[in-house]
Amino acid sequence: MTVTEPARYEDAALGFRNHWYPAMFSSDIRETEVKTLRILGEDILLKRVDGRVYAVRDECLHRGFAFSAKPECYTKNTLTCYFHGFTYAWKDGSLVCVPSDPESPLVGKAKLRSYPIIEAKGLVFIFIGDMDPTPPLSDDIASGLLEDGIHVVPWHNQEVSSNWRIAADSASELNHVFIHKDDGLIHYWRQPLPLAELPRGNNPYEGFVTHEGPGPKGMSDLFGDAIPVFEVKIEHEGEIGMIRSAYDPRTEGGSVPFGNMTATLSLPCGLRIGPWGGFEPGDPSGTGYTHFEWYVPIDENRHRYVIAWAKKVENENEALAMEHDVRTRWSYLEYEGFNRSDVLANEASQRAYAERGYAFGEKEHLSRIDGYVLTWRRVASKHNRGLQVPYGGKK
Amino acid sequence: MTVTEPARYEDAALGFRNHWYPAMFSSDIRETEVKTLRILGEDILLKRVDGRVYAVRDECLHRGFAFSAKPECYTKNTLTCYFHGFTYAWKDGSLVCVPSDPESPLVGKAKLRSYPIIEAKGLVFIFIGDMDPTPPLSDDIASGLLEDGIHVVPWHNQEVSSNWRIAADSASELNHVFIHKDDGLIHYWRQPLPLAELPRGNNPYEGFVTHEGPGPKGMSDLFGDAIPVFEVKIEHEGEIGMIRSAYDPRTEGGSVPFGNMTATLSLPCGLRIGPWGGFEPGDPSGTGYTHFEWYVPIDENRHRYVIAWAKKVENENEALAMEHDVRTRWSYLEYEGFNRSDVLANEASQRAYAERGYAFGEKEHLSRIDGYVLTWRRVASKHNRGLQVPYGGKK
Amino acid sequence: MTVTEPARYEDAALGFRNHWYPAMFSSDIRETEVKTLRILGEDILLKRVDGRVYAVRDECLHRGFAFSAKPECYTKNTLTCYFHGFTYAWKDGSLVCVPSDPESPLVGKAKLRSYPIIEAKGLVFIFIGDMDPTPPLSDDIASGLLEDGIHVVPWHNQEVSSNWRIAADSASELNHVFIHKDDGLIHYWRQPLPLAELPRGNNPYEGFVTHEGPGPKGMSDLFGDAIPVFEVKIEHEGEIGMIRSAYDPRTEGGSVPFGNMTATLSLPCGLRIGPWGGFEPGDPSGTGYTHFEWYVPIDENRHRYVIAWAKKVENENEALAMEHDVRTRWSYLEYEGFNRSDVLANEASQRAYAERGYAFGEKEHLSRIDGYVLTWRRVASKHNRGLQVPYGGKK
Repeated sequence: MTVTEPARYEDAALGFRNHWYPAMFSSDIRETEVKTLRILGEDILLKRVDGRVYAVRDECLHRGFAFSAKPECYTKNTLTCYFHGFTYAWKDGSLVCVPSDPESPLVGKAKLRSYPIIEAKGLVFIFIGDMDPTPPLSDDIASGLLEDGIHVVPWHNQEVSSNWRIAADSASELNHVFIHKDDGLIHYWRQPLPLAELPRGNNPYEGFVTHEGPGPKGMSDLFGDAIPVFEVKIEHEGEIGMIRSAYDPRTEGGSVPFGNMTATLSLPCGLRIGPWGGFEPGDPSGTGYTHFEWYVPIDENRHRYVIAWAKKVENENEALAMEHDVRTRWSYLEYEGFNRSDVLANEASQRAYAERGYAFGEKEHLSRIDGYVLTWRRVASKHNRGLQVPYGGKK
Repeated sequence: MTVTEPARYEDAALGFRNHWYPAMFSSDIRETEVKTLRILGEDILLKRVDGRVYAVRDECLHRGFAFSAKPECYTKNTLTCYFHGFTYAWKDGSLVCVPSDPESPLVGKAKLRSYPIIEAKGLVFIFIGDMDPTPPLSDDIASGLLEDGIHVVPWHNQEVSSNWRIAADSASELNHVFIHKDDGLIHYWRQPLPLAELPRGNNPYEGFVTHEGPGPKGMSDLFGDAIPVFEVKIEHEGEIGMIRSAYDPRTEGGSVPFGNMTATLSLPCGLRIGPWGGFEPGDPSGTGYTHFEWYVPIDENRHRYVIAWAKKVENENEALAMEHDVRTRWSYLEYEGFNRSDVLANEASQRAYAERGYAFGEKEHLSRIDGYVLTWRRVASKHNRGLQVPYGGKK
Repeated sequence: MTVTEPARYEDAALGFRNHWYPAMFSSDIRETEVKTLRILGEDILLKRVDGRVYAVRDECLHRGFAFSAKPECYTKNTLTCYFHGFTYAWKDGSLVCVPSDPESPLVGKAKLRSYPIIEAKGLVFIFIGDMDPTPPLSDDIASGLLEDGIHVVPWHNQEVSSNWRIAADSASELNHVFIHKDDGLIHYWRQPLPLAELPRGNNPYEGFVTHEGPGPKGMSDLFGDAIPVFEVKIEHEGEIGMIRSAYDPRTEGGSVPFGNMTATLSLPCGLRIGPWGGFEPGDPSGTGYTHFEWYVPIDENRHRYVIAWAKKVENENEALAMEHDVRTRWSYLEYEGFNRSDVLANEASQRAYAERGYAFGEKEHLSRIDGYVLTWRRVASKHNRGLQVPYGGKK
């Protein structure tokens, strides 16, 4: 097993190496289909063969042709380069055949970089790194998604024009909810949503639980620990401005039951919030969905925003009912009425972070209200499995 | 007051710091409106409040959000960041309120960079720099615009794809008039325009008046000092080519009265020519407009070309008559029939100046005919208030 | 004559200096027309005067104006800069006239870079370099194009998004024919085309003829020397995949007569294959066309793909018949049904070659099957006339 040194979050413009990432939805790659993927600065080709998905680097060893320009497969399990016919095994990338040289000493020796894939719960996970064996997938995802009896509906996958860390830093931080104050989902819920939370103390790291033992590494926040702010008064030059949550916690029959929710942000780039989203107007107990999302690095300036919802179900009928409910109602309310505001906020912060000669984080003004981001960065810096360098620095 | 060292013109790709620049027209920012501006490499947000225009840097101190993506103002005089609600005073950029931390020690201490604004004569002038107090606006504009009784009509504001110095170098240089030889305005005037002027001596700096004392710094050229060229003969390989001014100074009843005109180029990037533009066919005495224009740096490869005309008026009726005359007739004749050629010339010179590893001016072949540009560069290098570095080099 | 040191092929991202290149078709520049050209990183302006084509650098010496933005010619043989009227001789670039200074000491001394041009066989060849006198054009083109009695039809000129060397490396290399296995031209011919050729020995340089004496420098390959592969068997994981040439050499009445063909790749960037292309179904003897093509560098990421066909003709009628045949039938069959696959292969290899910090060739896996590319690179590195640096490194 490769020894891997944790890298500083501030340096991880392309993400962390040696972790599992969601690559795409299972439904996006059907039997026999070949798909491309750019992730953490690497270009990858995927194919589903006999139900399993395989992945190799999208570049021929011989002269650099990008297979994806015209992928050829003369057997289910092989990939042939359009240019000179070099043929590789999808399963491990090994060179199987050179048409112009059946006795080529390269056959059986040369190997295309291949990527471990685990498919689970309707998602295709890919391991970007060099560790062999790979760490378990369950170390890179918060619990509640992979387990038996959980049904998962992956329902959003979007390219966002910001570095992945801008999204991760605000994933479930309780002050950024300011952006959601007038979102459609809030009006659907008709429940008060806080505008912010007060500091939990002078020590910004106070109040957050970190996960540094076995299993997924990260941090949790029990929203019930927050002291919510529902009203902000701005006094300036004799004028008074009021910002109020759309619904009044004193008159609207109580707040959205955030007190029950826990948000867990874990390496490499995933967030879990639960219970979430299924609140009916007048029924704040919720339907018990758990929200999972990821900010998967594409390159230094873009990430992929992936969302999946999970729920424990008893049988196939319950699973189908959940699919119907999520796809025909919540996906619209949740993304158009909530998450889209996060995308706006993240993209509008990219200019500041992308500025020439500017190291991540240097120009911020963080204080005791930023315990969430400070805790996350500290945990992420300590427990990741290495800095991403495309292809591990290989040519 | 900050000590400011003049910078070499050759280095000033982004312009000179600590000067006043026209930012926009007054009519472009109405009461309550928020507008963005990129100028000298800085991103700025402006708002008009109770008639006055205020300007702050378009980037939240906290985590870098660009306010302009969704500007929020809960009182007339405050700007609230969409992301976490940090609220600033438009007037001086000071932090007024942090929703998540009413007692935040940052309040009253942290300050967004704010920009001095003076509005005058229908133009919004902004000070890009660090001096406090700022030098008077009148030191950065040639006389004849700011004074009482002068009515000004700003009527053109265009992004041009060239460095601002390419435009400034040719602002009113009497050899570049070659480009205007067949312009529509010349045919409207039906008056001879020279093609060039002969050298005023072997010393290229001869013949230009520099302004290096109190007030605006720059140089002037009295067009009457020029020895005009109305006809150029090209002899080559037995062929003869003639370039003639569209109208013959010997037969057309005398030249356009350039002898009366004075062109003044002054720091940071403005040109005044007067009397200008209002010549009627058959009435070369002119109507006494004074032409002002600016080449305001946007970034290294673009500038904003701003034009305003000024005239002394006695009353509101005269002012209105002037507005009508300029907007319905001269703006078309002057820009479409004259200044557009300057834009063509400046944009087509950008490739040479932008070439990698090429320092401004190095590949030119300047001689005694280039006194104008040589004098301007010398004066500009000597009297500017410092090199522009975005945000004064602050993060 | 300038002493010129051969440069390494690996360094020649912009091509080789001091060679003749096809600039355009004769029919693309009519009498009096002015055209622009970007070639080997240089920007050039061309004009046809009294039947002859002249070329100068597209940038005024005085202040860098790109003449092409508005070219002015007051005599047939002169070019006048739009900006300040500097006038140059098309023939040698010498400064003829400065409108503002008839006595300018620059006149007769300053010189625009001018480019030697030779027009032949419907093609305009330009010399990019500093040698004077220039080497003969016939040293930079394989025989069979320039000679008396040869009629040439130039019929394709396309910008391709790859470095020129990617195209040259595969020009007529007999393993890349794999890409043509299902091309339209093959089905038109109804003749077997090999998929690859077997190694000609363990020494990859074996089997190719190099031309290192007087005349064009390069290498030849007699296709008849190849041991063709018509069938490839892929065995992997118990599956068998077969790749077969579209037509069977054992049943289809013999192969396309490649045995008669010779491919010659020569400096700077040209390929000749003959006899080529005119095969009629059922008449494999061919009509005796010789195929010429070039990969002319534009910049580091693009080249121009130029094709011309040549044939010995006895009279004007035969020449006309050839023009008709090539333009109305073969140009479609040949490009759409064959060469377009080369463009696909070359463009899809560019990403690998353009990768940051990656020197040309470093990541390839070359072996004994790559004798063609290895031989070509060795000969090209040894016999070129120098590395291209735009304008010879002059400002």
